[in-house]
Amino acid sequence: MNYYVCLQQEGINDIAKFINKAQANNYNVVATSINANILPMEPFETDPTYPATLLKADEWNSKVLFCLSDVDVDSPNVKLSEYSKAMLLRDITWAEHLQNNGSVMIRLRGPKNENLAKIIEARNKGSWFIQVPITNPEIATFEHRKDATDKEIEEAQEVDPWSWWNDLRFAVNHNAKVKVVLELNDSDRPSRETVRRWLGEPIEAVIIPSSLFILNRSNYYVLNKEWQAIIGHFINVRANIIISATANDHGISQYADYMRKLINDNCDTHSLNSYENVLEIPLQPLFDNLDSYTYEIFEIDPVKYKLYQDAIEQALLDRVSDEEAKRTLTVIMVLGGGRGPLARAAFNAAEKAKRKVRVYIIEKNPSAIRTLTNMVKTLWSKKDVHIFSKDMRDFAPPELADILVSELLGSFGDNELSPECLDGALKLLKEDGISIPCKSTSYINPLMSAVLHNNVLQTSSVSAFNCGYVTLLKNIYHIDEPKALFEFKHPNRDKVVDNTRFKELLFTVEKDCVLHGIGGYFDTMLYKQISLSINPLTHTPGMFSWFPMFFPTQPRTVKQGDTISIKFWRCVDPGKVWYEWQLSAPVESERHNADGTGYNMRL
Amino acid sequence: MNYYVCLQQEGINDIAKFINKAQANNYNVVATSINANILPMEPFETDPTYPATLLKADEWNSKVLFCLSDVDVDSPNVKLSEYSKAMLLRDITWAEHLQNNGSVMIRLRGPKNENLAKIIEARNKGSWFIQVPITNPEIATFEHRKDATDKEIEEAQEVDPWSWWNDLRFAVNHNAKVKVVLELNDSDRPSRETVRRWLGEPIEAVIIPSSLFILNRSNYYVLNKEWQAIIGHFINVRANIIISATANDHGISQYADYMRKLINDNCDTHSLNSYENVLEIPLQPLFDNLDSYTYEIFEIDPVKYKLYQDAIEQALLDRVSDEEAKRTLTVIMVLGGGRGPLARAAFNAAEKAKRKVRVYIIEKNPSAIRTLTNMVKTLWSKKDVHIFSKDMRDFAPPELADILVSELLGSFGDNELSPECLDGALKLLKEDGISIPCKSTSYINPLMSAVLHNNVLQTSSVSAFNCGYVTLLKNIYHIDEPKALFEFKHPNRDKVVDNTRFKELLFTVEKDCVLHGIGGYFDTMLYKQISLSINPLTHTPGMFSWFPMFFPTQPRTVKQGDTISIKFWRCVDPGKVWYEWQLSAPVESERHNADGTGYNMRL
Repeated sequence: MNYYVCLQQEGINDIAKFINKAQANNYNVVATSINANILPMEPFETDPTYPATLLKADEWNSKVLFCLSDVDVDSPNVKLSEYSKAMLLRDITWAEHLQNNGSVMIRLRGPKNENLAKIIEARNKGSWFIQVPITNPEIATFEHRKDATDKEIEEAQEVDPWSWWNDLRFAVNHNAKVKVVLELNDSDRPSRETVRRWLGEPIEAVIIPSSLFILNRSNYYVLNKEWQAIIGHFINVRANIIISATANDHGISQYADYMRKLINDNCDTHSLNSYENVLEIPLQPLFDNLDSYTYEIFEIDPVKYKLYQDAIEQALLDRVSDEEAKRTLTVIMVLGGGRGPLARAAFNAAEKAKRKVRVYIIEKNPSAIRTLTNMVKTLWSKKDVHIFSKDMRDFAPPELADILVSELLGSFGDNELSPECLDGALKLLKEDGISIPCKSTSYINPLMSAVLHNNVLQTSSVSAFNCGYVTLLKNIYHIDEPKALFEFKHPNRDKVVDNTRFKELLFTVEKDCVLHGIGGYFDTMLYKQISLSINPLTHTPGMFSWFPMFFPTQPRTVKQGDTISIKFWRCVDPGKVWYEWQLSAPVESERHNADGTGYNMRL
Repeated sequence: MNYYVCLQQEGINDIAKFINKAQANNYNVVATSINANILPMEPFETDPTYPATLLKADEWNSKVLFCLSDVDVDSPNVKLSEYSKAMLLRDITWAEHLQNNGSVMIRLRGPKNENLAKIIEARNKGSWFIQVPITNPEIATFEHRKDATDKEIEEAQEVDPWSWWNDLRFAVNHNAKVKVVLELNDSDRPSRETVRRWLGEPIEAVIIPSSLFILNRSNYYVLNKEWQAIIGHFINVRANIIISATANDHGISQYADYMRKLINDNCDTHSLNSYENVLEIPLQPLFDNLDSYTYEIFEIDPVKYKLYQDAIEQALLDRVSDEEAKRTLTVIMVLGGGRGPLARAAFNAAEKAKRKVRVYIIEKNPSAIRTLTNMVKTLWSKKDVHIFSKDMRDFAPPELADILVSELLGSFGDNELSPECLDGALKLLKEDGISIPCKSTSYINPLMSAVLHNNVLQTSSVSAFNCGYVTLLKNIYHIDEPKALFEFKHPNRDKVVDNTRFKELLFTVEKDCVLHGIGGYFDTMLYKQISLSINPLTHTPGMFSWFPMFFPTQPRTVKQGDTISIKFWRCVDPGKVWYEWQLSAPVESERHNADGTGYNMRL
């Protein structure tokens, strides 16, 4: 991951020199006022602050963040607001001239930003970085004011700059080019929940004032543990770093080195980071045949097949005593054999358990059959193994199974149609036979994620808000913890099998925020206590086969203490299965994916 | 530019080993039959040719080109064609399983490919590389047939495999995922025109049979000069290389090294290659203000401003004799000063000519004015120079100019509205004053370019075929040479100024091909014999400020000897200027951009 560490400084006479100084001190970007030195009080268009030729065009683009004039375009004083607008537009014109796709930064001064929003919406080049204090900056001033009353302090503490940003975000219609630059403050450390909520926002960077650094015993500038943790969280969601310092600050080199180390410690490098916040349409392995690439991703999970092996081993031991081990054959049927990982787990389990097994592999994908056939001829030439190129629902077995093993689970448990498939395979199983897995449960919770919301908008599909997506959740805020939604047991020997479901779940809002959608997870009991989980509360360590799901809703600001009520349906008709979801509190809103027109799983 | 050099070989038992051998010999891709070794005569879905696990998924994608079975899906024998289809579909299923976004290669057997086209259209994964012999492969067989009659030979020579490809291309509806792999042949060297025509096609690679190589005196395998030139042309349009050899060929390492050298010699690296075949909407500098990035690209042209300087110098010398040099002041007005390059050229010219000048710089872009103002204060503080922040059409000068200097020319000469601007600036010029440039002429010719056609389709704009684009032409075939279209002279002292134009131009088709659109170019006389040109016949060496234009038409096959007639209009109304174009022979087709609704230049 490429992060930048930026040096912010005011009063710069010579930008080229400033960039050199920053680079010499291990910064790769600078931030400074677009108006060199003194802000002229008249917005003359001919103001010769500095020439465009000072830097090359690509340096203006890649090395400089321009801080726009700190003027009040939303002042109630019309003269002042008009003047401020003229100043700001002049700044923007100049920024657009210098940077053909750069970024400008502007600081929010308070809750009223309607005029600013209009200016932002009118500009169509580059990005806007909105500088927001993480807590009310006024609080800091009370340190120096002994006359402040308790009431004043209390009122100041109730001011929440997040709401300034939130109002602006709605006013610019969730424009993806508008991001947050979060300003930390040495006099007021934010609460854990305040930090967590910001992680659901599109954080471009955090501004760290140099005053946050303290000298340690070896005379090095460092951050204390609490700030390290807070900034670490932001780095983890890919926020960049801006160090704000004065011209005569001699610590700047140490700050940069320290931040690069902190980035290194918190940047969460893993091989799947290109999937972060990316919305994918869930696989339909029942309807489509998987390709080798997809099988390979599944197969390299270091945890999942080991747990399957453990579950099969335990089931073999429970089913056949040590005394019977030599003469009793256990029939294992692998439903959906893919390129062999479950069969391999079965053979390993049999070896470890010292039990005799016959393995039937049922697989409907003719290309996977080619690989399986080769494996039988080479790797498994001495095993009692039989391959059937069939859909498990149509398969007539030569004998019944003691153990059915399958991995038909999707990110939401039943969304790859494991209930329907395993119901169809019930006829393959002995009366007292075992299904691995034996149970699966889906979970949901309300999420704030401006990034995912923007990604939904960018699919530009008419049914974007009627789709469930698979995504590696990164920039999110869990508004409340996940709760259990639907449960399926296997084998299901009910007289009348009904795989439709409905449930309404209630969640509580801990802090004002925006509901952007619903997170979906699952866990599954393979056998007895051996389970797999992608529920964030109980996630199986090291397992990456499944990313969570995301069911989008229209963005809606919710208030601390609000109850969020979510209705969720699993619907079935002869040709397909689909989900519908609906927010029913704090306000009742539209039902998503009604009749499965936006997204469904084909039987 | 990243080219690949691929080793093609048949009868491969072990693909992994083959890849290793190829890599050890400096190849980065292999091509081989998707069916290992022997083609089974029944398309069993369980045919265990080799397992998918032989390679990693990304290796299947990036290292292997699969050659599909050479079967005849278009055979008139229904049984054979049905069998062939089953074989081919089996191959495709297997290829799609192994490669989640790879490429399959299939060889055209003759002119009839309707069934193949349907199969290609039905597949939605990966790319198709269509293997086409560059000349009729039958001709080679006559070498060994003494009984062949002159008539037979003549008929064979009339068969043009390009037409097989052309019919297929229309049958698959110009699908951008279908590309050509061109098969060279040691027994028949293609004509120059045959090669040139293929350069207008989407050439993925050329297949070079190892028999094309000859041993030189030092016992090294090389190509003769003619083949070097031919392959060099294909490399120049970014074709990759496939060497076709047998298993016991000991020259493969030398072939690869030789080809890498040939690639290096012909790959045409330049800093602008990311613009190749990219369609850009022309700038509208009169209506929009240019940004620093655009100015910078113009300013770094090593040739253009030198020629402007030469022109100004010559004009100064012609206007003021050596005797008058000390007491006569020449007034130069730079119309559209940008960030100063023309003013700089004027000062340099004055210095070289030893003439006194006063320079007025007129510029309407307030951001450029900032840079100019700074230049006046620093670089030009001792010059007689005056800046005016004005549109030249509204400028009232303190005195009249001896010389007007402007660079308002677009890729098509007048398409950045130089006629309208310079007519508006006529009032600034003395009766006997000079305009630099004094004349500009546009040129057009008919082009074949499947790549540009696909890029037009991919703009997915409703008016895609009613736009003129600026593009660095690369994969094109000039169906005929450019001819002069419209001419504008400056200053234009006509009583009634009319900048509308119409002309019909005739071109001759030298070889069957497809007309995809019209190339647009210009040249301009700066002063006397000093000119700038982007007409391919007279292009100013080293100048890159302007890419040609491309005016698309619907693709149409034209025959050798056909006359192509193109009508072209320049239209003007009070608010805008626009072009219309129409093919009127060999068939009359629709008029593009009627009323300027697709694309126009705002006044």
